[in-house]
Amino acid sequence: MTFYEKLEQHQQKLSRLSHLSAICGWDQAAMMPAGGNEARSEAMAELAVMHHELATAPHLAEWFEQAEAESLTKEQAVSLKEMKRGWQMSNLLPADLVEEKSLAGSKCEHAWRSQRNDNNWHAFSKNLEKVVELSRQEAQIRAEATGLSRYDALLDIYEPVMTTKELDQLFSDVKSWLPSLIQQVQEKQQSEAVLTPAGPFPVEQQKALSLEVMTKLGFDFNHGRLDVSVHPFCGGVPTDVRITTRYDEEDFTSALMGVIHETGHARYEQGLPAQWRGLPVGEARSMGVHESQSLFFEMQLSRSETFIDLLAPLASDAFDRRNDPALSSNNLTLFNTRVKPGYIRVDADEVTYPAHVILRYEIERDLIEGNIEVADIPELWDKKMTEYLGLSTRCNYTDGCMQDIHWTDGSFGYFPSYTLGAMYAAQFMAAMHKEMNVENLIRERNLSPIFNWLDRHVWKKASTVSTDQLLIDATGERLNAKYFKQHLIDRYLK
Amino acid sequence: MTFYEKLEQHQQKLSRLSHLSAICGWDQAAMMPAGGNEARSEAMAELAVMHHELATAPHLAEWFEQAEAESLTKEQAVSLKEMKRGWQMSNLLPADLVEEKSLAGSKCEHAWRSQRNDNNWHAFSKNLEKVVELSRQEAQIRAEATGLSRYDALLDIYEPVMTTKELDQLFSDVKSWLPSLIQQVQEKQQSEAVLTPAGPFPVEQQKALSLEVMTKLGFDFNHGRLDVSVHPFCGGVPTDVRITTRYDEEDFTSALMGVIHETGHARYEQGLPAQWRGLPVGEARSMGVHESQSLFFEMQLSRSETFIDLLAPLASDAFDRRNDPALSSNNLTLFNTRVKPGYIRVDADEVTYPAHVILRYEIERDLIEGNIEVADIPELWDKKMTEYLGLSTRCNYTDGCMQDIHWTDGSFGYFPSYTLGAMYAAQFMAAMHKEMNVENLIRERNLSPIFNWLDRHVWKKASTVSTDQLLIDATGERLNAKYFKQHLIDRYLK
Repeated sequence: MTFYEKLEQHQQKLSRLSHLSAICGWDQAAMMPAGGNEARSEAMAELAVMHHELATAPHLAEWFEQAEAESLTKEQAVSLKEMKRGWQMSNLLPADLVEEKSLAGSKCEHAWRSQRNDNNWHAFSKNLEKVVELSRQEAQIRAEATGLSRYDALLDIYEPVMTTKELDQLFSDVKSWLPSLIQQVQEKQQSEAVLTPAGPFPVEQQKALSLEVMTKLGFDFNHGRLDVSVHPFCGGVPTDVRITTRYDEEDFTSALMGVIHETGHARYEQGLPAQWRGLPVGEARSMGVHESQSLFFEMQLSRSETFIDLLAPLASDAFDRRNDPALSSNNLTLFNTRVKPGYIRVDADEVTYPAHVILRYEIERDLIEGNIEVADIPELWDKKMTEYLGLSTRCNYTDGCMQDIHWTDGSFGYFPSYTLGAMYAAQFMAAMHKEMNVENLIRERNLSPIFNWLDRHVWKKASTVSTDQLLIDATGERLNAKYFKQHLIDRYLK
Repeated sequence: MTFYEKLEQHQQKLSRLSHLSAICGWDQAAMMPAGGNEARSEAMAELAVMHHELATAPHLAEWFEQAEAESLTKEQAVSLKEMKRGWQMSNLLPADLVEEKSLAGSKCEHAWRSQRNDNNWHAFSKNLEKVVELSRQEAQIRAEATGLSRYDALLDIYEPVMTTKELDQLFSDVKSWLPSLIQQVQEKQQSEAVLTPAGPFPVEQQKALSLEVMTKLGFDFNHGRLDVSVHPFCGGVPTDVRITTRYDEEDFTSALMGVIHETGHARYEQGLPAQWRGLPVGEARSMGVHESQSLFFEMQLSRSETFIDLLAPLASDAFDRRNDPALSSNNLTLFNTRVKPGYIRVDADEVTYPAHVILRYEIERDLIEGNIEVADIPELWDKKMTEYLGLSTRCNYTDGCMQDIHWTDGSFGYFPSYTLGAMYAAQFMAAMHKEMNVENLIRERNLSPIFNWLDRHVWKKASTVSTDQLLIDATGERLNAKYFKQHLIDRYLK
């Protein structure tokens, strides 16, 4: 057996442990009764330790060295590179820093749950300072190992190859037109009469509708399920993708759009190439590309007028409300494209969402680079919210800088993925439009060509090429904000 | 840290891996879509390998030796003994025999699924011969290590301390009165007019009824769930017990009695002592004792006239059939205590069930000891079925010796547990009767004293004492068949 083959075998073993972790994690969120949590957490922590021990086994250094000297096919060389990236990532941090950061994150997050309700920035910031301190240490170690800047080294975990330099360019482009675009959209929408669909929408009917729409979107139920959890997510493994949602009997559109979003994630996972299964090269490329698929399904596809023409009658039938004007295609289109600046990112619409992300990016970048301190956050937050969305968060920490979970557990570098995903999605759709008449296909209920395009250009590529290359191969150019801008103008100002 | 403490820590680690295996195994049976099976089986096999490696780590021999020389509390000494029993069991068999037997079992079982339908004994027996050959090898190795006879050494896996000698005594006692008792019951029941409850009984209503009855039986939903699977079982872990059932819209009693049965298993698991969690001494004592709890709930308790007085109105309400005479307490009592000899063990009633088990015991005992060969099975099966139940299985392998899965996968020594469980249960109930008026408690809807008795005498004992001692402590005497006989006479002939 060659060393490359040994490494593949080793990687399959790691992948099988990740499989168990994914299923038990899904179960914890979607099935487990509360009383099972303590023993489950212990069992999953044990598995994480075993995974880490296996991933950092001392003999691997030699295996990688030997494998790199072997004569490999082009595909094997790429696979080896991705295996090595993962191995280096696993080995980078000293175990005590990982543990200390994990404990500080748990402590900060646990306290945050009540502190957020109490608007208690003072107490929260003490815990957050510790998390930031340890995240800076992590960033420093990663920066030294990779030659990247500190924040870029964290960004690299979620969005390999992406840099502060590129993000600054992309986001300053967005900032140059977004505030005025938001204003124009609001002015335009002022005169629109929109009906809010009135509940109750029984959970069983919402579930049936969700399953029907998932089927139309090509979700493979032989390799996945839909269930319920407090925080919707896409989990499981490519051969068995578990998506979840949360039903609100007063508003069926939130679960429906959520299910469509997770279906986008799920189809990416289900569409990953079987021949690379269990290897890093066969995994999704990045968080941003993953988000591009969920946003392609939710935003590009499902909030379009043509697609809502398809959805509306399904909803009317599901709820037996064939004459409800609030469920008409026209009204649902208006309802699902309302734009209104708000405090809360997760409730934001497609147009204002980037403002929330850019604000967080700018703050976390400066925080990790050491240009600002935790104490500076509230003022910066207020200033940027006012500038980008015209809303002040002065003294309102609950709906300001204490609203997200990402910083409390030290996931700095994650936020940009959301808006990168939105831009990738818009650029994919623009490229797709050059090859086919997407609206006509939707009207003809012939969605396969759309999914086949994504399958060919994104899903089957997995991690065989860099994100940059993936974008160039699929769209003919590098990532830029102009397709996203044009998409917003087309949908919201025409 | 003492060596005893090191062993405890090691055992907790094994227990956490078992936790993951239990949850992923439950998921595989109750949740997983078919397409997920291959990757799941691989992941679970990997976990089994890691568990085995950990359980047989070479340094453990020294740890056990050192721990045995340490000064231990009485409880620690018992705990150490049970840890050592598990360790010795894990180390006994050479890895290649385990693998060969596993492969032969899988092959035999896979082919059996179609061979059984085709009544193809000839083809099946070839595969079974291989399984028997390997099981004999296993028995030989276990016999040499333990000093037991070959069959006793297999019995010891499921029912420690139980022997062929004791089983022969118990079962010859049962055989001396069971056939005539079956005949008398049938004669008595001939004149009874019983209505078969007529479906459909919608699944949702059956589920609601199941949950209600589980609640009345003290199932702790903070530490467990009820779901659906093809073959009902009780899985999960003590802090999160997963029971399953299968609903038949034509017959609600099968799922209801099945749920009650699994609730008995579940309460044993949920009632195991928290201070020994994760250690062998804190686990259920044996398969037979486990079955005693499910049969106590299903047979002793729930098929009694008094308990059906409690169940019947719940069923009438659940199905909105308050005036259906088939759902009256009187009719449901008759319906749930019908006795009729049949070919199939899993469909057998309480009275004829032991005949099925004794037949299998006698054949597998002689097969493992080498007194008979696979080719002898059909004739022996036919002879014994005719003798015990008056039914011939000549040339009918499908409903004869090919009906069970146990031999196909090499689980010789398991069958006696079923009837041992029935006897333990009857003996427990008789002892309980000396302390309290069980019928009155049920009439008063005050079931706690019943469960408290089981908790004190069985659940909280876990594996701290031998099964023999457990019986003596709980009932004042060793296991014997007279309480089971008396129970059958009281219920079926009075």
